[in-house]
Parts: sequence; C-alpha cells; structure tokens
Amino acid sequence: MSGQHFNLLKTSGTARAGELNTPHGKVLTPVFMPVGSQATVKTLTPEDVKGLGFNMLLCNTYHLYLRPGVDIIKKLGGLHRFMSWDGAILTDSGGYQVFSLSPLCKITDEGVKFRSHIDGSEHFLTPELAIKYQEALGADVIMVLDECSAYGDGKEKIKKAMDRTHRWAERCLKAHKTKNQALYAIVQGGMFPDLRKESAQYLSALDLPGYAVGGLSVGEPKDITLPIIEQTTALLPPDKPRYLMGVGAPEDLVAGVARGIDMFDCALPTRVARNGALFTRQGRVNIRRAVYAKVDKSIDPTCDCYTCRTFSAAYLSHLFRAEELLALRLATIHNLRFINNLMKDIREAILDGSFDRFAKKFLSEYKTTDEQTRVAQKGKWLKGRAES
Amino acid sequence: MSGQHFNLLKTSGTARAGELNTPHGKVLTPVFMPVGSQATVKTLTPEDVKGLGFNMLLCNTYHLYLRPGVDIIKKLGGLHRFMSWDGAILTDSGGYQVFSLSPLCKITDEGVKFRSHIDGSEHFLTPELAIKYQEALGADVIMVLDECSAYGDGKEKIKKAMDRTHRWAERCLKAHKTKNQALYAIVQGGMFPDLRKESAQYLSALDLPGYAVGGLSVGEPKDITLPIIEQTTALLPPDKPRYLMGVGAPEDLVAGVARGIDMFDCALPTRVARNGALFTRQGRVNIRRAVYAKVDKSIDPTCDCYTCRTFSAAYLSHLFRAEELLALRLATIHNLRFINNLMKDIREAILDGSFDRFAKKFLSEYKTTDEQTRVAQKGKWLKGRAES
Repeated sequence: MSGQHFNLLKTSGTARAGELNTPHGKVLTPVFMPVGSQATVKTLTPEDVKGLGFNMLLCNTYHLYLRPGVDIIKKLGGLHRFMSWDGAILTDSGGYQVFSLSPLCKITDEGVKFRSHIDGSEHFLTPELAIKYQEALGADVIMVLDECSAYGDGKEKIKKAMDRTHRWAERCLKAHKTKNQALYAIVQGGMFPDLRKESAQYLSALDLPGYAVGGLSVGEPKDITLPIIEQTTALLPPDKPRYLMGVGAPEDLVAGVARGIDMFDCALPTRVARNGALFTRQGRVNIRRAVYAKVDKSIDPTCDCYTCRTFSAAYLSHLFRAEELLALRLATIHNLRFINNLMKDIREAILDGSFDRFAKKFLSEYKTTDEQTRVAQKGKWLKGRAES
Repeated sequence: MSGQHFNLLKTSGTARAGELNTPHGKVLTPVFMPVGSQATVKTLTPEDVKGLGFNMLLCNTYHLYLRPGVDIIKKLGGLHRFMSWDGAILTDSGGYQVFSLSPLCKITDEGVKFRSHIDGSEHFLTPELAIKYQEALGADVIMVLDECSAYGDGKEKIKKAMDRTHRWAERCLKAHKTKNQALYAIVQGGMFPDLRKESAQYLSALDLPGYAVGGLSVGEPKDITLPIIEQTTALLPPDKPRYLMGVGAPEDLVAGVARGIDMFDCALPTRVARNGALFTRQGRVNIRRAVYAKVDKSIDPTCDCYTCRTFSAAYLSHLFRAEELLALRLATIHNLRFINNLMKDIREAILDGSFDRFAKKFLSEYKTTDEQTRVAQKGKWLKGRAES
C-alpha cells in the first residue's frame, strides 16, 4: 500500500475524525459501511449506494465463496468489477458466518470444518485460505480469520479461542501477499477485561494497519459492551483505525464513536427497513402502523432522502401493506441516508470539538423502546449479523 | 378536454402512428403502458419508469379501490400525486379484476357483486361507481365497465354479455362528469365476427374518445385472436385510438400494431422479468440457465438499458440464484427498456413507411419457443393479467 492507510485528523474527547486511504478512494471516518453480503446492498444499485453518500461497503466472503464462488469473481475481474462498485470494499474472513450459519462447525488449530447452509456440502476454512479468498476477491480492507466466542462462554473457553485467534492472525499475516490490501486483526477476549487487554496488546505488537473489536453484539447487554469497547480502544495504537463489527443502530453508532471507534458495519439499518422500521432523530417509527395510512407528509419532513422528498407516509405505508417490492427499496434508502447523515453530523461535531454535546443531545432525543431494543438486538447469538 | 384527444399522424399499411394529448402531456403512439396495479410499477420508482422512456402507465382501479381505498387517494390529491407520477395514467374500470380475482362474482344488469380477494369483504360495482371511482383517482384515460366473457363461452352467453356491456357503456357515458378524462369504450363479442361487428358499430355510434378491443388474451389461440383484432379495428373510427388490453409480448405488440392497434398494456414484460426471462431481439433468454453463470458480457450487448450497460450476465445470474431483490429490479429495467425501444422502432418504421418490412424482419428474428409461449400465454383465463 502506498502512503499511510489511516490518518487521524482530530479528536474530540475519545471520539476521532480521520480518513482511510484505499485503492478505491478516500473514506472519511467515523464511517458506517452498508452490508452487501452477496455483492449487493439489498434492493439498491451501486449508484443508489453512492447517491446516499457511501463510498465504502462490506461484503461477506462466506456468502461469495459459496455463491457464485471466489474463482468466478476473480475471473470476472474481482469483486469491484463484478458488482460494478468503484468505491472501497471491506471483506470479512468468512469466520463469523461459518460460526453462525453452518449446520456443522468443527474447529481445530488447523482451521474450521463447516457445511454450506445452501446445499450442505462440506468445506474447510483455514487462516491461509481466508486470506487467499479475500485476495482473490480483491477488497481494499481484509480481515484475519478469528474464532468467535458466544456470550456466556466460560473464561477458559474464551481464552482458548482468543489464543487461537492470535495464532491465526499471525498465520494470516504470513499468508498475506498483496500489497494493496490492508489486513486488520480482530481483538477477542469476550467480556473479560484482562483477556481483552492481553488480546489488544498481543495484536498491537503485530503492527497491522487496522484493528477490529470482535466478539461483541453477540447477545450481551449493552451496559457490558460499552465499557469493553472503551477499554479495548484505549489499548490499541492511536494511529490505526478501530472497527466495531456488526454494530449499526443509531444510538450504538454514537456510543461507539464516543468510545474511540472509527468504523462500523451492520445489516440492521437495511434489515429493519425491510420490516418497515424507519429511523428518525426521535427514534424508530413503524410505517405499518395504521396511523400512517392517511399522513400526507413524509415520514420525516426534515430528511433529505429521495423517499422523504418524493413520497408521503401514506404512500409508503400503502406499499408496505400491499407488499410491493418498491417499499423495501424506499425504506432502505431512507434508513441508509439517515445513517449517512448521522455519521456526517458526528464527524462535523468531532472536527469542531463539540462531539460530546452532540452525542448527549442525540441520545437524549433518540428514544429506544423495549420493542425497538428487542428488534435491534439479536434474537440469538450471531444470528442477526449473518443475514443482511 | 381541451383540444383533440388523439391525432393520427401517419399510417403504414394498417399500422398507425399518432399522439395522445392528455392533461399530463403528449404520448406518442403506438404506445405500451407498463402496469402499476397498486400505484407502483413493481420494483421501480417513478423516476426509473420515466428514465426508461415511458410517459403513460396503467393502474388498476380494483386494487386501489380495495387498498388503500379511492377516498384516501382522492384526499391525498389524486393518483398522480399519491404515486408521484407526473406522466399520463390510464385506469381500468375494475371489472376485469372483479371477474378474475374475486372468489364471488354475481352479475346482474344493475352491476356486479364481488368479494375482496384480500379480506373476503363483499362489494358492489356498477357502471356509475366505476366512473365515480376513476374520476376520484383522476387518471387521464378511464374505461367503461364491461362484462368479460371467457374463451369457450357459447355464442348466446357472449351476446348477452356484449349487450350488457353496451348498456353499461351508455350508463358510464351518462355518469361521466369530468371534462379532462377521456372515457374509452370496450368492444366485446368474443371470437364471433358478427358480434364483434355489432359491438364495434354500436359503440362507435356513441362517439367516445377511444376504443378498446376487449375479451382477448383470455386463453384463445393466437391464430384466432389476430383476425378478430384486424376485423374489429377496421370497423372502428380511424380518428380514435384503439387499445388492445392485456397484450404485451414483443411479438404480439408487433402483430397488434400491424392490425391497427395504438395502445397496449400488459404485466407480462415485468412479470416474466421477475422470473428471470429477459427479452432480446432473438427471443427470450432465461438468465437462470447455468450457461450464464460465467458470462462476462451483458445479457444483450446491443441493449442500452442501465442493467446491460452496468452488469455482466454472470452478475445478474448470481443475483437471481442468490434470490437478491436487486435481480428483480434489474430484470424489470431491461425488459421495459426493450419494450420501449421496440415501440420506438415500430413508430419510426411507420413514420418512414417501412413498418411492413420492419415487422417481417422482427418476427423472423424473434424466436418464440413452446416454453416461451406457454409462459407468455395465460395459464388460466383472466388469471394472468390481474397479477402485475
């Protein structure tokens, strides 16, 4: 990689504004990456995604490995060309989906044996193969293979997974040949501060271009997650980007940035959109509620998205009730634009040193109800993120 | 309506080029109208539809009457504003869907009693109500309520339905109050030339601004349909547009224009798109076939649509196999652009007097296989058109 992968430009308390330099352009941080599991952000064209203000997204190696296959994408010129996306892409290692989607999942030091959730065929993933596949796909940022723990696992089990994650990180680093892909490590250690510290220090010593905080958003209460994030980022090198995987609820983005996170991805904004849950600065609204059937204004008159500029809540509500496919796209557009606007506001607040005030105001206005929290959190551990 | 509703500009044999003048702009004929049953052309925004070259579409009164309700749409400023479409709209009377979708359908001279296919609620539609609903929706062209016959009905039954259709047309004309909506009558008479003649002459005498050829595409073989169309258009006033309802396969559009038709609507191009059947000048191709999985070119390298300009057949094939929603939109874009380009070519050929040569060439190159014909034709009478 020519030049610095990440520049830290400004801090406001623990919150950071910076920029990622990738072969597919500059990405301003903090950044939220929409999820395009199967080489498409569900319902949207690449032009739609760009038009919403995003220039980096995440694709899932597991999904693409199984279908259409890494070799096919490589022969067709790589993932960017395949999906006609000229912005930056981050691919994960495939490990997370193996642990969450495969009906079989047998882990040894060598790697992980799993079955396709599509046709039941058996596969074997190793750190070296995870790198090979991601190099073939050609993403701008790639991830090490890690062993994911579940919330509730005992400390011994979590330490064992963490140690294996460290060994796998070293094997990934050794296997990694391409110069223009930034390889990130993943800090594990569950909810145990001493393990998190050990993991952060171990991986920091490898001097990789970026670090993810893994093993969160797996069913644990938020009051446990946030201190762990805060503690972990404090131990990571300040000149490297920190990526919180699988987090994307508006309140969690603000809370994550407040704790030193630079990058996020999550299927939540697009998934809840397809269920009719739309973000506003006051919290989520459910467009399926009867009250919207006659509302002549847009869902959020302050929103600048195509959906809100063009259609009434009554029309959107009609599309959802009539089960029209356009509903899913219009709601996706709204939620992603909301997230992009939020990240822009967050960054501006950091740059002018007022992030703390911004975060307090946002979090006091943005209501999460029990129902919203239930939808936001994952029903079962790891199930939520895998389905985009 | 100020000015002439239709201007016939040029004929090439029996084929006609003209223009419709509507309160929402001029529409060049021959025209194909995409179907937006529930106030949306499935998967597309109004901008998408405009961008494909269309400026007139069809919406179904039956669907909109049941959901969200005609009153709601009227209160929200009418159908154009509700769906944010500033082009022309044609609404049907609702009769066709009543006959095809309702689990109950009891016809008397007064009107037709039916049940909602959504919630089973009972409703009564009369010629007067069909006009009232369409006036409330505010389409540019509205249709009389007619009684649809089935292919295979005996002559006596078809004559009875035709006579009722004539009486209902007169009641619709009497009930019709708005000046800026063009009311079209519908010629019935089944496959009986003498009845078709009687119907065409009866309705022509009413001097309405347009005439539809109804009761076709209901399961009868095409070698019966085409002579009936030819005979019927020959009996209709040449200065009025002729609308062939529910026809939209490429070969049928060419054949229809050749027999004097000016307007078409059909859900077929969008419906088969969502099944992965894509139009090319050589016939339909099925993108789900294994052969496309590695094809680095677009489905049709001669096509100027967004899908073909942007994505390989391999990518589109991947989206279909991965059951990604974007697949449905990309395929819809392709098929509708194909139809729009076809109608443009047809019109240009008429204007330069070479339509006959164009039609022969097109029909000799465009292959329809048995399977394609099976998909193109409606499995059960009337079932095909109602689902967009």
